Amino acid sequence: MPEAAFAAADRAVIGDSEFDRDTALTRREPGVYDIDLSAGWTIISAVNGGYLLAVLGRALADALPHADPFTVSAHYLTASQPGPAVVRTDVVRSGRSLSTGQASLFQYDEDGTEVERIRVLASYGDLDTLPDDVRTSAKPPAIPPIEQCFGPEDGPAPVSGSSAITERLMLKLDPATLGWALGQPSGRGEMRAWFGLADGRDADPLSLLLAVDALPPTAFELGLSGWVPTVELTVHVRCRPAPGPLRVAITTRNLAGGFLEEDAEVWDSADRLVAQSRQLARVRLR
Amino acid sequence: MPEAAFAAADRAVIGDSEFDRDTALTRREPGVYDIDLSAGWTIISAVNGGYLLAVLGRALADALPHADPFTVSAHYLTASQPGPAVVRTDVVRSGRSLSTGQASLFQYDEDGTEVERIRVLASYGDLDTLPDDVRTSAKPPAIPPIEQCFGPEDGPAPVSGSSAITERLMLKLDPATLGWALGQPSGRGEMRAWFGLADGRDADPLSLLLAVDALPPTAFELGLSGWVPTVELTVHVRCRPAPGPLRVAITTRNLAGGFLEEDAEVWDSADRLVAQSRQLARVRLR
Repeated sequence: MPEAAFAAADRAVIGDSEFDRDTALTRREPGVYDIDLSAGWTIISAVNGGYLLAVLGRALADALPHADPFTVSAHYLTASQPGPAVVRTDVVRSGRSLSTGQASLFQYDEDGTEVERIRVLASYGDLDTLPDDVRTSAKPPAIPPIEQCFGPEDGPAPVSGSSAITERLMLKLDPATLGWALGQPSGRGEMRAWFGLADGRDADPLSLLLAVDALPPTAFELGLSGWVPTVELTVHVRCRPAPGPLRVAITTRNLAGGFLEEDAEVWDSADRLVAQSRQLARVRLR
Repeated sequence: MPEAAFAAADRAVIGDSEFDRDTALTRREPGVYDIDLSAGWTIISAVNGGYLLAVLGRALADALPHADPFTVSAHYLTASQPGPAVVRTDVVRSGRSLSTGQASLFQYDEDGTEVERIRVLASYGDLDTLPDDVRTSAKPPAIPPIEQCFGPEDGPAPVSGSSAITERLMLKLDPATLGWALGQPSGRGEMRAWFGLADGRDADPLSLLLAVDALPPTAFELGLSGWVPTVELTVHVRCRPAPGPLRVAITTRNLAGGFLEEDAEVWDSADRLVAQSRQLARVRLR
């Protein structure tokens, strides 16, 4: 776990880490940003959707008067590849406590024309100005201590070993949701893990956009293999995460008509529900 | 209940009902539609967000090559008023099985300039082409028979009696989530009801966009009163609803920092989960 794995001096910090460098954008003109999508966040050959969401989220944090994503809705159009991309943003509304923006990520086809990969609508605010009232019935996920959970480095890779993203993440899966990796899926649409960044960088609102889409698909525990492409993903960031590893719990209740929903909860080390997300994904039934 | 309340001949049908007339748009030019927002779907003076979502959903059903909303993400910018509005749509991507579009609803300020009310991103498809596989762990909500539930017409209006929308809906609330109306909120963030259209029109994918945002706020059962404006609402339509009344169950687990989520499930008379939604809303704590 990060606490154990890093002497304080060796840990990356927010603003100076792999995640920050790989989501950094260059402003071409007001509202338009260039980025080279890193091959370090790919699963097999596809760029992770959470990493892409963080890239778009960072662009909007620059373009909007508010810095923190409160709710981000993304519709995934075509598969992104590592390499050059441009993000075009549009300020929809600037309010006192909330502002709303739109952003699209484009890449280029053979003849250089832009192809849209993702479009997002998002409302931003300032998490630090929110009252600290909490009335919640939500409970942190039941997940064993991090040292009793398993990651790709713990033997026969439960997460695809050919995925570069596994080297960027501290991902320790709950053994109770690892049956799929041993050929014995539980049949329950659940996936739980401890989550952090491999270089020890603590979580912030932007990295929460990555955290909600970084676990193996719940479909694996439903006995399905293969690709589960996201159609739409909406994230709510509910408060600024405390330092330390996150716990992510993902649940699928309804697989029907070749689609399923994945509901994710992200909890911080202070036992606060820091983010909620839901995505609609397609499944290729075998 | 609609079955009992209407002789077949008296029941409105899909395509010829209050809901269809009040969401009907006039195409001004390709992708641009005019509508007069009906005062019949207001809560106090505000136009219901679900009705507005259905208006935008109908515009996109016309503008896109696919007719059924699969996932619709709406960000609410300013409060809509009954009266003239224009919907501007944009086809983002046309695919074989899914197409994605964007739509904005505008009204006019004193000097006639357009003010954006809502912006949506949505992916559409054809529900009738989906395989009928279902692997679900979701259970229909525990809700008493419709004749044991209560609506505004059943005495001291549990739903604000000054809301025109109550005359358009068949809304029968589970007594277990009616404590707020009797000054004894349960403290649980739950709201459940039988839902239909008052003229007996059966549900379709567009009316599901209304159903997910038509119940009283769960905040009432948390002991809060006052306005709970929606910031963002995303709906997934999972299958075409069967004829007959719907059951809608809404849950709030986390009220924090002046915001809460409302998760809605809509079940049809065939016990199928036909829609799921989640919204982020602001609460004014008393």
